Amino acid sequence: MVVQPVREDKFSFGLWTVGWRAVDPFGDATRPALDAVEAVHRLSELGAWGITFHDDDLIPFGSGDSAREQQIKRFRAALDDTGLVVPMATTNLFSHPVFKDGALTSNSRDVRRFALRKVLRNVDLAAELGARTYVLWGGREGSETDAAKDVRAALDRYREGIDTIAQYVLDQGYDLRLALEPKPNEPRGDIFLPTIGHALAFISQLEHHELVGVNPETGHEQMAGLNFVHGIGQALWQGKLFHIDLNGQRGPRYDQDLIFGHGDLLSAFFLVDLLEHGGYDGPRHFDYKPLRTEDIDGVWASAAANMRSYLLLRERARAFRADPRVQEALEASRLPELAQPTLAPGESPADLKADRSAFEDFDPEAAGRRGYGFAALSQLAFEHLVGGA
Amino acid sequence: MVVQPVREDKFSFGLWTVGWRAVDPFGDATRPALDAVEAVHRLSELGAWGITFHDDDLIPFGSGDSAREQQIKRFRAALDDTGLVVPMATTNLFSHPVFKDGALTSNSRDVRRFALRKVLRNVDLAAELGARTYVLWGGREGSETDAAKDVRAALDRYREGIDTIAQYVLDQGYDLRLALEPKPNEPRGDIFLPTIGHALAFISQLEHHELVGVNPETGHEQMAGLNFVHGIGQALWQGKLFHIDLNGQRGPRYDQDLIFGHGDLLSAFFLVDLLEHGGYDGPRHFDYKPLRTEDIDGVWASAAANMRSYLLLRERARAFRADPRVQEALEASRLPELAQPTLAPGESPADLKADRSAFEDFDPEAAGRRGYGFAALSQLAFEHLVGGA
Amino acid sequence: MVVQPVREDKFSFGLWTVGWRAVDPFGDATRPALDAVEAVHRLSELGAWGITFHDDDLIPFGSGDSAREQQIKRFRAALDDTGLVVPMATTNLFSHPVFKDGALTSNSRDVRRFALRKVLRNVDLAAELGARTYVLWGGREGSETDAAKDVRAALDRYREGIDTIAQYVLDQGYDLRLALEPKPNEPRGDIFLPTIGHALAFISQLEHHELVGVNPETGHEQMAGLNFVHGIGQALWQGKLFHIDLNGQRGPRYDQDLIFGHGDLLSAFFLVDLLEHGGYDGPRHFDYKPLRTEDIDGVWASAAANMRSYLLLRERARAFRADPRVQEALEASRLPELAQPTLAPGESPADLKADRSAFEDFDPEAAGRRGYGFAALSQLAFEHLVGGA
Amino acid sequence: MVVQPVREDKFSFGLWTVGWRAVDPFGDATRPALDAVEAVHRLSELGAWGITFHDDDLIPFGSGDSAREQQIKRFRAALDDTGLVVPMATTNLFSHPVFKDGALTSNSRDVRRFALRKVLRNVDLAAELGARTYVLWGGREGSETDAAKDVRAALDRYREGIDTIAQYVLDQGYDLRLALEPKPNEPRGDIFLPTIGHALAFISQLEHHELVGVNPETGHEQMAGLNFVHGIGQALWQGKLFHIDLNGQRGPRYDQDLIFGHGDLLSAFFLVDLLEHGGYDGPRHFDYKPLRTEDIDGVWASAAANMRSYLLLRERARAFRADPRVQEALEASRLPELAQPTLAPGESPADLKADRSAFEDFDPEAAGRRGYGFAALSQLAFEHLVGGA
Repeated sequence: MVVQPVREDKFSFGLWTVGWRAVDPFGDATRPALDAVEAVHRLSELGAWGITFHDDDLIPFGSGDSAREQQIKRFRAALDDTGLVVPMATTNLFSHPVFKDGALTSNSRDVRRFALRKVLRNVDLAAELGARTYVLWGGREGSETDAAKDVRAALDRYREGIDTIAQYVLDQGYDLRLALEPKPNEPRGDIFLPTIGHALAFISQLEHHELVGVNPETGHEQMAGLNFVHGIGQALWQGKLFHIDLNGQRGPRYDQDLIFGHGDLLSAFFLVDLLEHGGYDGPRHFDYKPLRTEDIDGVWASAAANMRSYLLLRERARAFRADPRVQEALEASRLPELAQPTLAPGESPADLKADRSAFEDFDPEAAGRRGYGFAALSQLAFEHLVGGA
Repeated sequence: MVVQPVREDKFSFGLWTVGWRAVDPFGDATRPALDAVEAVHRLSELGAWGITFHDDDLIPFGSGDSAREQQIKRFRAALDDTGLVVPMATTNLFSHPVFKDGALTSNSRDVRRFALRKVLRNVDLAAELGARTYVLWGGREGSETDAAKDVRAALDRYREGIDTIAQYVLDQGYDLRLALEPKPNEPRGDIFLPTIGHALAFISQLEHHELVGVNPETGHEQMAGLNFVHGIGQALWQGKLFHIDLNGQRGPRYDQDLIFGHGDLLSAFFLVDLLEHGGYDGPRHFDYKPLRTEDIDGVWASAAANMRSYLLLRERARAFRADPRVQEALEASRLPELAQPTLAPGESPADLKADRSAFEDFDPEAAGRRGYGFAALSQLAFEHLVGGA
Repeated sequence: MVVQPVREDKFSFGLWTVGWRAVDPFGDATRPALDAVEAVHRLSELGAWGITFHDDDLIPFGSGDSAREQQIKRFRAALDDTGLVVPMATTNLFSHPVFKDGALTSNSRDVRRFALRKVLRNVDLAAELGARTYVLWGGREGSETDAAKDVRAALDRYREGIDTIAQYVLDQGYDLRLALEPKPNEPRGDIFLPTIGHALAFISQLEHHELVGVNPETGHEQMAGLNFVHGIGQALWQGKLFHIDLNGQRGPRYDQDLIFGHGDLLSAFFLVDLLEHGGYDGPRHFDYKPLRTEDIDGVWASAAANMRSYLLLRERARAFRADPRVQEALEASRLPELAQPTLAPGESPADLKADRSAFEDFDPEAAGRRGYGFAALSQLAFEHLVGGA
Repeated sequence: MVVQPVREDKFSFGLWTVGWRAVDPFGDATRPALDAVEAVHRLSELGAWGITFHDDDLIPFGSGDSAREQQIKRFRAALDDTGLVVPMATTNLFSHPVFKDGALTSNSRDVRRFALRKVLRNVDLAAELGARTYVLWGGREGSETDAAKDVRAALDRYREGIDTIAQYVLDQGYDLRLALEPKPNEPRGDIFLPTIGHALAFISQLEHHELVGVNPETGHEQMAGLNFVHGIGQALWQGKLFHIDLNGQRGPRYDQDLIFGHGDLLSAFFLVDLLEHGGYDGPRHFDYKPLRTEDIDGVWASAAANMRSYLLLRERARAFRADPRVQEALEASRLPELAQPTLAPGESPADLKADRSAFEDFDPEAAGRRGYGFAALSQLAFEHLVGGA
């Protein structure tokens, strides 16, 4: 099978992914710094379509203006040379000690103001580079002890922060939407907006809620043992899947950021199936970390692996959907019936109550004996996934 | 210390809690059935204020009308005798085989209609008995394989179902609000609306969203490793904490339903602190299961234990809040500053951008050296909790 | 691809798997009882090789002697008719209320004695039916509160119990080995011998340790977030993998007992690879539960699915091992070097200390720059697994 | 209550704990380096008894001999000044890139030899400083993909490594025992010897098994959702609790290293109860990390907090054991009966089989109705813990 990514696949990578120097809580860097220009060229050669960045990935924290401009210029030139786009950008609000108690919800008001300014500055750059999505991951917004925060005050500040950024985007007339990235914990003991659900709920309370969606990450939901496909399904249902971070995770533990497909594989299969057949047409963004054991060759091998995995799973998902046995199995499982409204057109609660067939004359014992055929359906998916169907 | 519950404490219990016969996935019942009337009398003697029920707890599934009326009459008499109230009721949409693929989101339309009718019937009874909250736990709404459901279709049906019930409540003029109870898994592999966040997000999409809130359960959030206090904080922040289920759980595993306080004790302490000082004045409802090892004496001992635990923690939380050292520690942690808006009154994004003190003249290194004093604060909480402060 | 199980594959099933009536903690049975004779015939037709049972699966608890004999006779006849073997048997020490605080470690001495007698009785039957392995799953040996048990006393009793059974086997001259099955929790809050490791450690303390090994279950280890392949590797390394229970689980949550391969698929692939290439020649025993949504057709479909999944994964693992690119990748990853002793033949600690090349002249910086090529190796495994290599 | 640690309490701290500069996977150091001499003095003032270290904590990796000697001299002088002892030492086999694929089980033989030499060198220093325990935490021994390791070869190398170190200790005549520290994951995807059980099982396979025990860490077991008290109980039962690392963790997630008591508090209470009343007389060693939000004052406040928490829990545990109601509750729970052998003195399996009272005449229904009173017992523990009994 030919598995070669092309621009139309919309694969993108964070600069911080291939550029990760492999510092972890117990170990020093194992790889040298990677120049952003090199990253652009190599990703382009591998067939990627886009590159994304935190402000500090591109321009080290505290750089002077001219160093900043110089670096942006080099980066732009590389983009121009390769045709790579910048579909998304984001802010590093977590590495510097100033953010140790959070950024938009730090107990320190001056830190909150500094954080907002850091965001606005990079929003300008994001817009300038043509990004359409601006991601906000509040990795330090949280606590290790419940005594440290008044959650409601923190959410007030969080809302104020996001609405301020949204207002700025509107004021500037940028064609940019915001996407919040949930995570349950790490580096804080507990992070606010821990799941897709909490983020969607929070967004419903924003003044500029129409401008704000989510950027869910595979591993983050799986760190809470949650079903990522269900979460993405709900985000799509609410019209809020603005961007997605693909990677791999092996259940509740530290954030692994494995290659896409190298975590929960069955879930990855159904995720690709949903993305491909569920109306999502945004970037397929890989937010992974090349293993600390790898040298730079391993970095590029792993970058390529993310895309190959996606393409292989897309192939499998298409075959699954196209298989007449699958269509039969879905019918046997009564899945098409789930798309039918429960009430008849115009039926009121009173009408339902008057329908004896729904209750008085309904035979729950008989209905309870129905088999739903999910085992057979599930096995068909398994066999398609392993290429044996 | 006198630890004696009184009606004003608003402690309530599910009929299914003390009445649990201790069937589990690997074992048969160890206790005989408990009569509802006996439960009312015993809970009243112990100092409880309310009792709650699923329709089938009170009236066995499939009972004829006269048996049903007879049982309601007996139950009412017991309530009248004791003064116990029925603050909440709910529907069993999970035990009977007919609901094996869900109720409001079953793939079978006739099952969905039957489920709605079962709910409406018990909503009438709930209103008749004076309940102000109607809980919906969709324990069977979910799947074991992602092939089995189209999540978006399922959420459409879920919304249709909840809106239909809400419409019925409005049509009947009942003084009743609906409260959705999230749970991540068990008995389904993955349950829709797995956390407080997902439920709040879903509610924002309802036609009758103002009528619908959440009924979070301690253990359910903790099964996903989430911070229950943070979740309750967000629910309060969104004005949606309509009811609460208190119990104990020891992290991600099967749903334990331990006595309140016998799970994550630090979290229980901060929860009581939040409920008592955070403006929640609804029932303190215990949704626990007496251990399978206990006989009926152990059942009543454990019921009493829930209330004693709550009262002891309330005492500790009050002392914590009243301690001047705690107030100092909160100041040192800059917590009061979190309540201050980040922007000045009337300050626009442009104004913020023009404020050099917020960015150009701000010293992040100095701010990064600040100590937040959370360790000291956390230890004060610990020492108050163990009665050693 | 032809995926048809044959006897030589040594697939076996518990009578309690296909016979599970689908009672769960929140729901009643959805399927009628399955006759053991019917189970034998159907499993045989599907290509299974063996059937296993708890005493109470075959003969209901409390049956009289003649009913017991009658049922054994019928079962034997079915075995004779089909050629199915009984490679393993086990005791139900968990369903009846008498075992609610455990069996071999119950606080009640009379319960412990009764439990031992129940085991011995079924050991006789197991030997009579030709079983070579006798499994002991101590599902009720544990507690919900640490106050309830003195762990050391409990382990004394556990050891006494297992050694008594082993002594009985020796006294009777049975050709039977014992296999302990670990599980971290459920139905008890915490179960003694929670993992493969704890069980192996316990076995090392037994008088008859040579007669006792482990029967690990996929899902049980994964409920603790542990790597099942690593656990099986250690059990093999210690010569203690006497039997294995294959199924699927989706991380820390209730015990799901999904079809083999329908849980952590990457792990299932590497497990089959290890079993097929690691010297294990015992039964491939499926300890799964057909989903509660299934009728009897779904039960048989799911039984067949377990075997098909195993065979497909075996095919993939064989291709993986046979691929020259994989051999190259393993070399590049220096895996063959792991098989070389670290010390030279006869080298003493003093010799090592004297070897300057090992420390003084060793360049850790250079060695730290080596790439291990695990990303490429891992991707090769992924691509073989999904049939795309 | 006076809560002031004294030397006799045997509290010790790792140099790396108070000295942690708060680098985490997403953030830079927030605190300056702490001089070892300063650490010794401050810990002594706080009432600690001992200090422990990794080689690289005391002497930076790659230091020349004279710098090394100089630093050891300064450290010794501080110990002499204060009377602080060094009860334990350990090796850093995880920070430097050379160990990125492990140390004793690295696929690279030269790395394994280097690692052994690094251990032996620090074993000499440990012995010289009077340490009685040498800890080995194999944090990098493991993998992220099962393709990367042959587990059995890895365990062969692990055994070879540990036996070599043990042989060296014997050869040198050091009064030193080895203690293995298990951890399930982080920084590797899966670590070999993931739990207390796996480590104890591995030890049983060592040539010098009598010299090797375990050093379990609270948080490490709880990252796998395991009951730490049960694990410590088994280690004590096997005579293998050589050392212990106390801290706090909030279930399966990244390794938090919270202050002791600030994680699972009920478990901490029962742990102290077991350590104090279970015959363990070794160090109470705190392996925690001061929160990244803290400045140096917070570091010392948190160091003190660990000891205060332990002492408060010890007080509570003593009161619990001394309470006559607790003794009654233990009797009611039949716990003393668990200490009685199940068999009578000299009773054989055949004797047991002949005892009709054990089976034929035993009434399991009656025994199944017994209440074990665990709820009441558990509540007594809760109330003692919160100082309300």
